[in-house]
Amino acid sequence: MNSTCIGQLADHEGREVTLHGWVYNTRSSGAVQFVLVRDGTGIVQAVAVRGSVPDDVFGLAQRLTQESAVTISGLVRKDRRAPGGYELTLTNLQLVHEARDYPITPKEHGPDFLLSHRHLWVRSARQHAILRIRAQVEHAIRGFLDDQGFVLTDSPILTPAACEGTSTLFETDYFGDKAYLSQSGQLYVEATAMAFGKVYCFGPTFRAEKSKTRRHLTEFWMVEPEMAYADLDDMMALGEQLVGHVVQEVLRERSRELEVLKRDTKLLAQIEPPFPRITYDEAIALLQKQGEDIAWGDDFGAPHEIAIGDSFQKPVFVHRYPAQIKAFYMEPDPSRPEVALCADLLAPEGYGEIIGGGQRTHNLELLEDRIAANNLPREAFEWYLDLRRYGSVPHAGFGLGIERTVAWICGIEHVRETIPFPRMLTRIYP
Amino acid sequence: MNSTCIGQLADHEGREVTLHGWVYNTRSSGAVQFVLVRDGTGIVQAVAVRGSVPDDVFGLAQRLTQESAVTISGLVRKDRRAPGGYELTLTNLQLVHEARDYPITPKEHGPDFLLSHRHLWVRSARQHAILRIRAQVEHAIRGFLDDQGFVLTDSPILTPAACEGTSTLFETDYFGDKAYLSQSGQLYVEATAMAFGKVYCFGPTFRAEKSKTRRHLTEFWMVEPEMAYADLDDMMALGEQLVGHVVQEVLRERSRELEVLKRDTKLLAQIEPPFPRITYDEAIALLQKQGEDIAWGDDFGAPHEIAIGDSFQKPVFVHRYPAQIKAFYMEPDPSRPEVALCADLLAPEGYGEIIGGGQRTHNLELLEDRIAANNLPREAFEWYLDLRRYGSVPHAGFGLGIERTVAWICGIEHVRETIPFPRMLTRIYP
Repeated sequence: MNSTCIGQLADHEGREVTLHGWVYNTRSSGAVQFVLVRDGTGIVQAVAVRGSVPDDVFGLAQRLTQESAVTISGLVRKDRRAPGGYELTLTNLQLVHEARDYPITPKEHGPDFLLSHRHLWVRSARQHAILRIRAQVEHAIRGFLDDQGFVLTDSPILTPAACEGTSTLFETDYFGDKAYLSQSGQLYVEATAMAFGKVYCFGPTFRAEKSKTRRHLTEFWMVEPEMAYADLDDMMALGEQLVGHVVQEVLRERSRELEVLKRDTKLLAQIEPPFPRITYDEAIALLQKQGEDIAWGDDFGAPHEIAIGDSFQKPVFVHRYPAQIKAFYMEPDPSRPEVALCADLLAPEGYGEIIGGGQRTHNLELLEDRIAANNLPREAFEWYLDLRRYGSVPHAGFGLGIERTVAWICGIEHVRETIPFPRMLTRIYP
Repeated sequence: MNSTCIGQLADHEGREVTLHGWVYNTRSSGAVQFVLVRDGTGIVQAVAVRGSVPDDVFGLAQRLTQESAVTISGLVRKDRRAPGGYELTLTNLQLVHEARDYPITPKEHGPDFLLSHRHLWVRSARQHAILRIRAQVEHAIRGFLDDQGFVLTDSPILTPAACEGTSTLFETDYFGDKAYLSQSGQLYVEATAMAFGKVYCFGPTFRAEKSKTRRHLTEFWMVEPEMAYADLDDMMALGEQLVGHVVQEVLRERSRELEVLKRDTKLLAQIEPPFPRITYDEAIALLQKQGEDIAWGDDFGAPHEIAIGDSFQKPVFVHRYPAQIKAFYMEPDPSRPEVALCADLLAPEGYGEIIGGGQRTHNLELLEDRIAANNLPREAFEWYLDLRRYGSVPHAGFGLGIERTVAWICGIEHVRETIPFPRMLTRIYP
């Protein structure tokens, strides 16, 4: 008999197979017992008919509890009403481990309860679908960048200095010195871009922000591609190609999961380059026209980002923000130095910023001035200044936030569901 | 004219191309000037003959300094003596940025100097080769696991409790509570394995060890696959298949880089499953026969691991260590409870342990006893105990250390060269 998994039942139609999984649900209709079994690759319904299986097997099928571990055998039958297209006619059943009083029942639970049981919550169909889409998003990003010749160069997490001030940094003692958890690998990929031309880092990043919103985590994943000999236009071109590729791969490979989430895929199907591009000035005008109380020079809050993003069917690039509200390393627009050659990508449907990036200053004196003007510790940035001393070239890149991208693609409200074990202001357990 | 990269010159033979890169080296033979240019995808030699290019271009070619940024144009000629198989007959040259007194010269530098200039050192041919092999190793691991149906589930870095004591943990303040940087994502992938069947996490891990050896970093990357319904033999089978796949992909895709490193590839070519397997008892006997002063119950030090690894041509699994020297979550061998169902994979050629793993206890009472016996804070492990309360099944997995694996495949002495920005006891800069 074949030991297989639910995702591969199509290869075994008409044959008897054995599966190893967990009881997702059961229901009974007198002489027929239905057992829904999940094994991580899918969910299948096994049907036991009294008299056609030994009495002890039928009795066991009747007593099965939610999330008990079971090994089941059965005949694979095609059934177009079944979720995966196949059903099992049960022939045998073994209890591997009985689960008693599984805490997450089909009734409604509050988010705090579910988050405290995240280690079990990940087994439910909705969370399962979201996390499979997350894995697909990460797969699509790596596949795209690898195919385009980007070299993965992992940035360090433990860093000696703060990129943009220490107020939102997690600090740790590093053998007597202070060290901080990285908020971004960008400065480091700027160094490796000068060695490899096109690079990316992809890892966890940290922000000790006291924000308690549906878009904030203290620990989140970011992919950061960086290109030497590239400008703002190259950065936006890469961003739209990457996002288009990710959305299309998820649509192709994870249609069943999107269905579980009841995601409107028509909206996603059109996410292909080119994306609209507007200047910061145009974005301010757009917001003012919508009655927002905002003036040139103000930074966007989440409601502004959402309002701009919702004005378009596709993600929209907003470029050339005022230099004063952006980070010290941004390259000024030579034709208009009060704005920076930077761009954010705002997702539609209320999801706000998913990409932030731009062209980095490659001029040594300008960068020195910026470091001084921002009161940053010069010694900590000497190595970064070196990149402008030895073969400095225009370069550009961006960071794409994984959790916000996954939330948007899944069409779900809160980023806390897009990562296996979310870390938030009031939560670090489990 | 085509703007291309050195890695793709073969597609442009006989045509004129433009390249964007940096000066790697220059040499002169009177009327002929040779300029070695690198662009991240390779190194090419451009040849300028006085009189056949404008005088100002020839003059510039003569004055070029190491690591200056240049845009060069030239005719692509096949030349089997050239490193990449092609040379350029220079037709034009533009200086993008002049580098003066580049600190890393062809003369010898000490490791401290080079590590302090790591942001520039990554541009040198040797470091370039090592880091490309690292990227390939990471690519091979993900490709293998994705193809085998493992789902990527990122484990958190910020964790509330210590897996194996707090003495080697980096601590941080988490909004008033203590949090620690993860040493391993294992406990978390045990949870997701019960949801997805086969999973892995792949990210940075941290150990605040005061070790100053050639095999230790404080921040290093680890891939940790975990399988539900799996035992020690499944774990070893997965480990040898993964390592075999990684080595063969590097041999296939990174032969030029292995050549730069002068790696003996005959030794690597034979790294295919099955790998030899010996028990801890046999390993002790082997060491005693070699005159080592070691007794049953002792843990292996680095010299022991190296001695065992060097006794075989391929990596060797040592399995069933004494339970007392292994972590609290190990499953005891039912036929011999004093040993644990665990295995380490020791690489040949003096590289020691690259994999550690095994079968995890799935028995609730046993795990509770172990947590108590190890004086671990029970509350912090309640969620982990839940995995044994609800549908507990045999499961197994391992952690593969990226830096040690890369060091072995590259045949280099110290792990500090295998990661873009190494973090060590006395080093967190750049």
